[in-house]
Amino acid sequence: MSENQGYALEELEIGLSAQTVKLVTEADIQAFAEVSGDFNPVHMDEDFARRTPFRGRIAHGALTASLISGVLGNQLPGPGAIFMGMNMKFHRPVRIGDEVTAKVTVKEVHAKERRVVMDCLCSVEGEPAMTATTEVMVRKRLRKKAD
Amino acid sequence: MSENQGYALEELEIGLSAQTVKLVTEADIQAFAEVSGDFNPVHMDEDFARRTPFRGRIAHGALTASLISGVLGNQLPGPGAIFMGMNMKFHRPVRIGDEVTAKVTVKEVHAKERRVVMDCLCSVEGEPAMTATTEVMVRKRLRKKAD
Repeated sequence: MSENQGYALEELEIGLSAQTVKLVTEADIQAFAEVSGDFNPVHMDEDFARRTPFRGRIAHGALTASLISGVLGNQLPGPGAIFMGMNMKFHRPVRIGDEVTAKVTVKEVHAKERRVVMDCLCSVEGEPAMTATTEVMVRKRLRKKAD
Repeated sequence: MSENQGYALEELEIGLSAQTVKLVTEADIQAFAEVSGDFNPVHMDEDFARRTPFRGRIAHGALTASLISGVLGNQLPGPGAIFMGMNMKFHRPVRIGDEVTAKVTVKEVHAKERRVVMDCLCSVEGEPAMTATTEVMVRKRLRKKAD
């Protein structure tokens, strides 16, 4: 990345939001399994997964959650923001071929502690797949962007 | 995977634990960035990261968290367990070359709801990097393992 400047704390307002859309592929699930070591057959094995309540392979929940990490790290607050914690719940499975919209919205700004709480939502066709709140630490001073 | 049988609910006792150890490599960070879309330079760009309080590249927090997904999916409760939610906090960064121990311990078993709460810890050289609790859903009936 060349633009290494995310939002500074002073630029963050409650309600500010950003999102990204990602098509989840079989290759994503394979790559995620390799990095995480999670080869749970509900993700990897169609025959096994077909006999579960999901009736087919689903993406790792942590893969869906990682899309939030992407929006936080790239867009809002963006480069330099530090992921401090996350509280997430899964509501419905994400499947190969699903287009996931991952959206984050500024919920609270604690200027003294440089701590920002974000509401997070991953949805598929308008239905929530995962909801979460995250805490990120954001640098305080406003640096000028080099245009 | 060939052994598609994790623990059934009846086999889970409070205090039961499992762990895995993973050496975090540059390739892991690259693969995780590609899947999550998180190219935050604090993870990807040594020059940028050196000027942050971390004084060098760190692994994505969500990558560390995903190791817990691996222990849950492979070992305890193991194949078939469904990840329902996770509440995590990061305590110190994980760097390239760190050996992360990811450990999960059964904390609560709610038999009626088939819901199990697990304590989770990712540590580096005995120091906590991430702590979490997760909720997983576990199948109830005990199937015989094929030996």
